[in-house]
Amino acid sequence: MHNSANPSGSLSALTTPCLLLDEARLQRNIDRMNVRADMFGVQLRPHVKTAKSTQVARRIFGDATGPITVSTLREAEYFFADGFDDILYAVSMVPAKVARAAALARAGARLRFVTDDMANAQAIAAAAEREGVHFEMLVEIDADGHRAGLRPDDSRIVDIARSLQSTPQLRFAGVMTHAGASYDCVGAAALRVHARLERDAVVHAAQALRDAGLACECVSLGSTPTLTFVEDLSGVTEARVGVYVFNDLVQSNLGVCRLDDIALSVLTTVVSHKRDTGRLIVDAGGLALSKDHGTARQAIDYGYGQVCSEDGHVLPGLRVCEVNQEHGLIAAVADTDAAAMFDALPIGTRLRLLPNHACMTAAAYESYHVDTACGWEQWPRCNGW
Amino acid sequence: MHNSANPSGSLSALTTPCLLLDEARLQRNIDRMNVRADMFGVQLRPHVKTAKSTQVARRIFGDATGPITVSTLREAEYFFADGFDDILYAVSMVPAKVARAAALARAGARLRFVTDDMANAQAIAAAAEREGVHFEMLVEIDADGHRAGLRPDDSRIVDIARSLQSTPQLRFAGVMTHAGASYDCVGAAALRVHARLERDAVVHAAQALRDAGLACECVSLGSTPTLTFVEDLSGVTEARVGVYVFNDLVQSNLGVCRLDDIALSVLTTVVSHKRDTGRLIVDAGGLALSKDHGTARQAIDYGYGQVCSEDGHVLPGLRVCEVNQEHGLIAAVADTDAAAMFDALPIGTRLRLLPNHACMTAAAYESYHVDTACGWEQWPRCNGW
Repeated sequence: MHNSANPSGSLSALTTPCLLLDEARLQRNIDRMNVRADMFGVQLRPHVKTAKSTQVARRIFGDATGPITVSTLREAEYFFADGFDDILYAVSMVPAKVARAAALARAGARLRFVTDDMANAQAIAAAAEREGVHFEMLVEIDADGHRAGLRPDDSRIVDIARSLQSTPQLRFAGVMTHAGASYDCVGAAALRVHARLERDAVVHAAQALRDAGLACECVSLGSTPTLTFVEDLSGVTEARVGVYVFNDLVQSNLGVCRLDDIALSVLTTVVSHKRDTGRLIVDAGGLALSKDHGTARQAIDYGYGQVCSEDGHVLPGLRVCEVNQEHGLIAAVADTDAAAMFDALPIGTRLRLLPNHACMTAAAYESYHVDTACGWEQWPRCNGW
Repeated sequence: MHNSANPSGSLSALTTPCLLLDEARLQRNIDRMNVRADMFGVQLRPHVKTAKSTQVARRIFGDATGPITVSTLREAEYFFADGFDDILYAVSMVPAKVARAAALARAGARLRFVTDDMANAQAIAAAAEREGVHFEMLVEIDADGHRAGLRPDDSRIVDIARSLQSTPQLRFAGVMTHAGASYDCVGAAALRVHARLERDAVVHAAQALRDAGLACECVSLGSTPTLTFVEDLSGVTEARVGVYVFNDLVQSNLGVCRLDDIALSVLTTVVSHKRDTGRLIVDAGGLALSKDHGTARQAIDYGYGQVCSEDGHVLPGLRVCEVNQEHGLIAAVADTDAAAMFDALPIGTRLRLLPNHACMTAAAYESYHVDTACGWEQWPRCNGW
């Protein structure tokens, strides 16, 4: 039993602000990415940091478990408790975290860690030896200068892999990359180029390892934008994607999804009319929406959220222009629409707000209120560290 | 017994990222504001939305309870359970929230709500009547165009007050304002002017009410910047201040505090060196720090945080320049310092990060790890809605 019925049982009974999840859109987003992974013959290892929900993750695997990517050890513990036992922790591992991870390994989890540093890999090996556990290690490759990792032609990749292979506590399992600069690309053409760059980087590194006589079983990559547009994944074994399950305004601006593919929204109530400044005030602010302003430099700056009616229809031209902790300020994009906004949306009206960045918005909530074919359900999340 | 001892008992035993609170700085910040409130003869009604901690709130009242301001009904419930029974909910009230609030009122809470709309006030009265409970109401005044409220000379203030006075379920208790635009002022001179404007707005509204023959018992205002610099609070009965208990980089830029007055920090670990891009990578990212970039347009843009050593000494010139969900990227402000940064801070080094906006950063955590004179304690927080 993974779903708990919402005792209140209806949208109108929910208190605001709260987090809504549209099950039909979620399923469509999941199905679409599963089709792509099948088409390219790669294993999907979804990044569960977006939803942090075992119910959402199980949907990806047809109500079963499967390999996952996590961003915190708490997620690893939470998902392992629900049967997810093949876990990649995709933030560079450090020795101080080995003791906590070792408890999971002893309980039967197959844990994979990433690093890009030789001395650190050796320190992790020493810590694993003290704990008497075994881990698998991937070397992180930097495809596009976005964040961590070694450039694909860096000779240290082979050095670290060789060192890991001679370490009894750690098994060198392969290479991984995340082309995070894909978020700076817009549209299909640019994203196809960036997706090729991501694939080439990690396949190039894998080839260098094999040329050096090392096995490289796992060749892992992924981001929602690149996976949506990639044309060739030959040489790649697995893909890690996260935000596609929900989508958001940033993804919409990138061309990854349409507004009606966004499965996540925040339910809010109009609490004040500020006619002299042209602002409608709602009870979803910087905590309920997050202060992520990821659309600020994109084609459409949605402020802190796109306004929709309570039943989910986009109200074009109404956006959250400013947020304080528990106040959101909505403005009409065209000043001439302000009077109509106040007339149409009296105090007490409920609205849905589409988020800029689903991962950040969802993190403020303990659970999702899920609109399913069988009524409203409440699905918990795993927050914190 | 309000404090629970941390079983690990030391800084080195904490896992990262986590939230640290310096008790000595907290106490100094609290004492300083208590002195100011006493000096001006106003009752402090601290805004507990910053710390969301009964331990912190009790410090303000000498280990007792007192009148508080909340930003969510969940805070009201949480603090009432610990004995705080005089509560102002400072976000415009709506009828849909009356049933939940009524449960608190029946349990003995004295609840005050704010509104700036006649029809809404009457709908709240009708809802209170259905619930058979009584509330006190304040009319919100707009001192500076920042957010909600009626301008001080708006005749609707008297109309709403009169309507409330004739409503058996609601008692008109007074007026309140929050000069939020004080965050756009910099330095003592500008903040003194803004503090006078805030005081004048709410005192002017109170006078208009008295001129109309209405009692106006409560004249409430406040923000940390204005309270820090105000020179005259005659006519004011209470002050609401929140972030001063912790302070942050935004307050430092405003001239409200010094860096060594910031009591809150995030403990993090260096997990990767990215020498080719000049970035040090830590395990505190957009969730651990928040995506609040409130210092972006201030005198010093601290990025997403100022870097300190593990023991809290500021490392000038090192800032968090970028955040992803669980990755923070630290850069040296001067490129020439990058090599020294990598040499001084090997992978595994622990650092403290000072936050831009304490309220937003703290909200990601379930508890504070508090460095007290008697060792480390863990104090819980009340998050969500």
